[in-house]
Amino acid sequence: MESSVGYAYEAARDRLLPRVEAALQEFLDRRQAAPAHYGMMRYHLGWADESLSPIAAPVGKRLRPLLCLLTTEGCAGDAETALPAAIALELLHNFTLIHDDIEDGDALRHHRPTVWKLWGEPQAINAGDGMHVLAHLALLDLVRHDVPTERVLSLARRLAQTSLVITEGQHLDIAFERREDVTPAEYLDMIGRKSAALIGCAAVMGAEIAGASDDVCTALERFGADLGMGFQIRDDVLGIWGRAETTGKPAGDLRRRKKTLPSLYAFNRSPAEERSVFARLFASSEPDERAVDDVLEMLERHGARHHCEKMVGRYSAAARDRLTALPESSARSALEALVDQLETRDF
Amino acid sequence: MESSVGYAYEAARDRLLPRVEAALQEFLDRRQAAPAHYGMMRYHLGWADESLSPIAAPVGKRLRPLLCLLTTEGCAGDAETALPAAIALELLHNFTLIHDDIEDGDALRHHRPTVWKLWGEPQAINAGDGMHVLAHLALLDLVRHDVPTERVLSLARRLAQTSLVITEGQHLDIAFERREDVTPAEYLDMIGRKSAALIGCAAVMGAEIAGASDDVCTALERFGADLGMGFQIRDDVLGIWGRAETTGKPAGDLRRRKKTLPSLYAFNRSPAEERSVFARLFASSEPDERAVDDVLEMLERHGARHHCEKMVGRYSAAARDRLTALPESSARSALEALVDQLETRDF
Repeated sequence: MESSVGYAYEAARDRLLPRVEAALQEFLDRRQAAPAHYGMMRYHLGWADESLSPIAAPVGKRLRPLLCLLTTEGCAGDAETALPAAIALELLHNFTLIHDDIEDGDALRHHRPTVWKLWGEPQAINAGDGMHVLAHLALLDLVRHDVPTERVLSLARRLAQTSLVITEGQHLDIAFERREDVTPAEYLDMIGRKSAALIGCAAVMGAEIAGASDDVCTALERFGADLGMGFQIRDDVLGIWGRAETTGKPAGDLRRRKKTLPSLYAFNRSPAEERSVFARLFASSEPDERAVDDVLEMLERHGARHHCEKMVGRYSAAARDRLTALPESSARSALEALVDQLETRDF
Repeated sequence: MESSVGYAYEAARDRLLPRVEAALQEFLDRRQAAPAHYGMMRYHLGWADESLSPIAAPVGKRLRPLLCLLTTEGCAGDAETALPAAIALELLHNFTLIHDDIEDGDALRHHRPTVWKLWGEPQAINAGDGMHVLAHLALLDLVRHDVPTERVLSLARRLAQTSLVITEGQHLDIAFERREDVTPAEYLDMIGRKSAALIGCAAVMGAEIAGASDDVCTALERFGADLGMGFQIRDDVLGIWGRAETTGKPAGDLRRRKKTLPSLYAFNRSPAEERSVFARLFASSEPDERAVDDVLEMLERHGARHHCEKMVGRYSAAARDRLTALPESSARSALEALVDQLETRDF
């Protein structure tokens, strides 16, 4: 990422991230009742330790708010105006993480115990619910940033609609765990809802706030959705082949019996008599080294890695292409650099 | 409930309930993706059985939507206009029930298995999340009912704010389970957030939609909040002394080691050396008949039932008093009848 294009995103991020962080903190600071309720949210956001004391831990990458602010600027709007939408997007994303961690039984996130692990499932479900509604509440502050009321209502509907689509994606994701016959098309539909929809929402919101034309809004929503699809499929590739290069322990997603695009692709291309190899892995309750190796061999045989990397490339190219709806600007350069980064990232 | 006043509420309910039910069903019917996701919501709302086939089961009492429609009419508005708010309130209430059942580990609700019991916690958390956002989405349809955008935004903020306050109440409720020293004042604050806030929200929303003055809106919000406090404390009384009269098995809330107002009141009036009676019950993991009887004896000694019933009477009187902000009308009579009914209900 040492190219000048790479720098364009990092420079924008360094300029905008502190404003996102400050707005998020200020928004949380307004709450008075039930301090431990908001304390859990602060912990999850990386601002507090387990005893709820403030810390300066590294925070998340805040991809969604940054996207929103950059598309605002790319449409000649002011990032300041869009801050309520930016923090709404980050709160919505983090609410889904708190609940996902419960639903998946994950005890760790970014090397820290998850909220449910520290405070139990009941409080964690409830903290997620609080963060969910904080997202919708944050967005309404756009009115105080002089966004016209009609537009705020349209954005509120968009955020709620996206939030609903995310729950549809999550429903499918959980349901797929018990199914052997998931097709790549079904999987792509699922990640479209669970992951890409919010990234598309982030990108289009900035354009809408800046008062861009319908055509530009549509182009940016698709830009975000394509970026999100590429991002998720890259994640799937890294989940199987990524860690091998850094930790020496490959196939993390297979060890966790997580069905992602590479294995679904290979499964669906395998003749019926070879499919039991996958069933042996995904139906097991403990990781079985032999089954992992056998599935890896099937992925190799069907060129699953190459296929998925090609898809990442296609989605990234489509995303870049959508960006041509914007005039040249440093914001657009930063967005282009972001596509490059997400396409080639290895972490 | 055979008085003419009682009839006034039943007549209004019989007139309005089918419209609420039809609007709720129509709103859910709009969803296309992930049918089983919405199927769980239909099951919870009483429209589907465990295999998600439609049934005509008795539905809930729909108190919150009916309140909203009656205050709309009481302020000379049209109930039709307020339907999106009415269904938003019912969806919000039911989302909290789906999550409460998980958080409390309750396997039954109204004699039917709860959503998590049938489909597991991950899907149930997610179905609740979907219903939560459906509530916020439903409200925005007020725009299509010709409510001015400024007012819709103000109502959206109110609903989100209330939803947040409910999570604060739920946080406190869960936290109180582990504390021995909860005061009645803390308990009243908790139920004010967890239960009464939404009933206050329901009452004021109707007034706001009808374009009532700020004074009338304030009076109706307090009406709903007072009604909600009385409703919840009546519940607490019934949870200890209610079932005795009908099932012969008294003290359900004590058997479940649920701290409610009667026991907190008696505990806080007991001298320090007698408090171990309460600790013995509430710290136990299984219901202990002897401990239940001892606590019942303490409630008797400190006049806890009489104290709580007096509070219900005071909140009900306050609620009735708030209603005088409305001109005389059949809607106001129905609301007065509702106060009477909730004050004296024994189920």
